[in-house]
Amino acid sequence: MMSSTQIDAPAGVPFIDITREFDAPRELVFRAYTDPELLAQWLGPRKYKMTVESWDVRDGGKWRYVHSDEQGNAYGFHGVFHGDQTPDGMTQTFEFEGWPGHVSLEQLVFEDRDGKTVLRNHSVYQTIEARDAMIESGMETGVNEGYERLEELLATMRQPVA
Amino acid sequence: MMSSTQIDAPAGVPFIDITREFDAPRELVFRAYTDPELLAQWLGPRKYKMTVESWDVRDGGKWRYVHSDEQGNAYGFHGVFHGDQTPDGMTQTFEFEGWPGHVSLEQLVFEDRDGKTVLRNHSVYQTIEARDAMIESGMETGVNEGYERLEELLATMRQPVA
Repeated sequence: MMSSTQIDAPAGVPFIDITREFDAPRELVFRAYTDPELLAQWLGPRKYKMTVESWDVRDGGKWRYVHSDEQGNAYGFHGVFHGDQTPDGMTQTFEFEGWPGHVSLEQLVFEDRDGKTVLRNHSVYQTIEARDAMIESGMETGVNEGYERLEELLATMRQPVA
Repeated sequence: MMSSTQIDAPAGVPFIDITREFDAPRELVFRAYTDPELLAQWLGPRKYKMTVESWDVRDGGKWRYVHSDEQGNAYGFHGVFHGDQTPDGMTQTFEFEGWPGHVSLEQLVFEDRDGKTVLRNHSVYQTIEARDAMIESGMETGVNEGYERLEELLATMRQPVA
């Protein structure tokens, strides 16, 4: 059974909090986030071709990917990893290139729950208005669909020997 | 007469807003922020030796500086510039190396007011608790003293010919 994704955008603060449980150990979920070849298989809506240009998972490392469709539209995103990147915390900045000058700061935590993983994604925006604009952009569909794809991918990955 | 610095940390949101007027054109104030040799002359409290290791003012450029005292204490700070850096907006991440894992996002705007400059510094923290900790660290003294030194420096700089 698919888990459901919870997306919270509480009034009065510039936060978006996303929580989702995955039926896989946290090392595996973390690997699906840090290995660019795996990332390309799940991040974002199904209708886009995903091209990961760089995904340098270390303190100060840069990342960039592009979602494109058959009509020739392309949507670029980029950012920088900040600090040590571990299952206890991955921190990165996030910019959508279609809306330059707006930066958000995202922290992922991969929490073990009896061999499954609760993924917590806490994002903070520069203003409450920018947070609201992100919610209104329809991000919910992309997040839900991406996490469904991640769950499917995890099911096909062999679990690592402890 | 010295201007005063206004520091706002409103309850319930993870923001710190700092506003200060300087009696100099905004191009000059911007230069004092972007030229590392000028920056070293004013940023931070007077009691520290300031060493700017890097200050690469461009999209994706990194910065790092260290405040040290005669007792051998050293306090490092670093971050990454995000987006175009102009008097209309300088955006950067900010980390104090004594408190790893905590990143904030800072935006400076240099606003012209009849030939003087109103500097607006908007910072957002990952949590309200982290914002509160920054306020309680005594940042106010450092900010006030740094801006006093900046005002003194600006008074000694020749104004650029238009």
